[in-house]
Amino acid sequence: MKLTDAQIAEFDREGYLFLPSTFSAEEIAVLKGELPGIFAQERDEVWREQDGKAVRTAFAAHHYNEAFRLLGHHPRMIEPVQQLLDGPVYIHQYKINAKAAFDGDVWQWHQDYGTWARDDQMPEARAMNIAVFLDEVSAVNGPLMFIPRSHKQGVLEAGHDLETTSYPLWTLDRKTIRRLADEGGIVAPTGPAGSVLMFHSTLVHASPPNISPWDRTIVYISACHVDNHIRQFKRPEWVAHRDFTPIEVVEDDSLLRFRQQKQQSANTAAE
Amino acid sequence: MKLTDAQIAEFDREGYLFLPSTFSAEEIAVLKGELPGIFAQERDEVWREQDGKAVRTAFAAHHYNEAFRLLGHHPRMIEPVQQLLDGPVYIHQYKINAKAAFDGDVWQWHQDYGTWARDDQMPEARAMNIAVFLDEVSAVNGPLMFIPRSHKQGVLEAGHDLETTSYPLWTLDRKTIRRLADEGGIVAPTGPAGSVLMFHSTLVHASPPNISPWDRTIVYISACHVDNHIRQFKRPEWVAHRDFTPIEVVEDDSLLRFRQQKQQSANTAAE
Repeated sequence: MKLTDAQIAEFDREGYLFLPSTFSAEEIAVLKGELPGIFAQERDEVWREQDGKAVRTAFAAHHYNEAFRLLGHHPRMIEPVQQLLDGPVYIHQYKINAKAAFDGDVWQWHQDYGTWARDDQMPEARAMNIAVFLDEVSAVNGPLMFIPRSHKQGVLEAGHDLETTSYPLWTLDRKTIRRLADEGGIVAPTGPAGSVLMFHSTLVHASPPNISPWDRTIVYISACHVDNHIRQFKRPEWVAHRDFTPIEVVEDDSLLRFRQQKQQSANTAAE
Repeated sequence: MKLTDAQIAEFDREGYLFLPSTFSAEEIAVLKGELPGIFAQERDEVWREQDGKAVRTAFAAHHYNEAFRLLGHHPRMIEPVQQLLDGPVYIHQYKINAKAAFDGDVWQWHQDYGTWARDDQMPEARAMNIAVFLDEVSAVNGPLMFIPRSHKQGVLEAGHDLETTSYPLWTLDRKTIRRLADEGGIVAPTGPAGSVLMFHSTLVHASPPNISPWDRTIVYISACHVDNHIRQFKRPEWVAHRDFTPIEVVEDDSLLRFRQQKQQSANTAAE
């Protein structure tokens, strides 16, 4: 999977690229099938909402789940990132953000690189997010919102919000959001499960609570150029990874092969 | 303003009708110009969010503001309602719902007639809402969400939610919402300021918090057939009105004439 020059120019200009239906329904079904098992685990990596029940984020699932490991090494995820960041990358963060039906809470306006710079001492914004929709994302289930072109602003002043939600975040003030949104507008890319969103690590974004009866799960892989790895290890390893080995991609059909193997094992076990 | 037979059939089938740009930018500007004065008033009718500051709802503004009185008697609001309810109507409720930038909070899933039946003893669902967007409503500023065709379910079981927000509301349980949304889907009609939304009093609806930097003000006029007036006066008069006199419509250009008169008075005062 290679981005065209026009796509690279669009990413640079707008700060994001939306690629609908990049993964098939079968591939998404493989990943979704693993979610109940992951979300049921009582481990530090599985972070809950303020209610203590609904999952907000499952961190680092590529370390303890094979299907999500394959996704983290998938050529449709990693090759475009290598193109945009111009070289080998490692995974800085890996998040399954659940935004559960009814319970999924807000993510306030922020820049990811703001947190990576302040908390992890990542030297430059040579890092980005690539997200996969595991559910259809629509206007009604808490879509991700971007302020286009805001990534050109560099790192904006932010305050450390420890109160609004269960997860600490460096968030931007209202005056800044108003100014940026009046300039660039706000977009909420929506589309079917399997769609991919790539966005710059300084792009300002947020998402509202999900009041719909439908889950809105998105997997976020935050990739960083290997030369640009973090210098400070203040946050847990499962939040900000410390293995800077370049990612080697797996085969394009690896998720379907994983499903096949799993079915074979199940059949063998049943015999 | 007359609805066509096709529009009447659509309202009956889906439970709502959306009429973009029914009021002009000039007319909306007249109404918006009155908002700061209304929202600044410290009076019972002006209900605030849990923060005690941002306005959630200004009730009964047609009783203390001339522009909003004219809107409540406007032929583009009242004539379609008279058609749909088949006779003379009175105003049961009049709300300016602010859904302020950043602060506007959720309205949980509910049916308006559920509250009117339980709290006000309105005999039948021969009542409906007609709403005007005073701001553009988009996917990003907390749009109103409907479950199409849910109005055919009659009055659904509900619980009295006194906790989620600052305003008490009879809300529906999650299982019911999931069932209805799986059947009918969820729509979020969006459009420019001046657009009008009509919806049945048993149509299930909600709206998420507004995390955008833009206000999302909608005026709701709840009209009821005069024969179907409420029987119980438990809630304050400014929440559930007790004047059942049929509304007589004003002239179609009344908002622009109001603006003209106001400008003339201002000029006279300045001379």
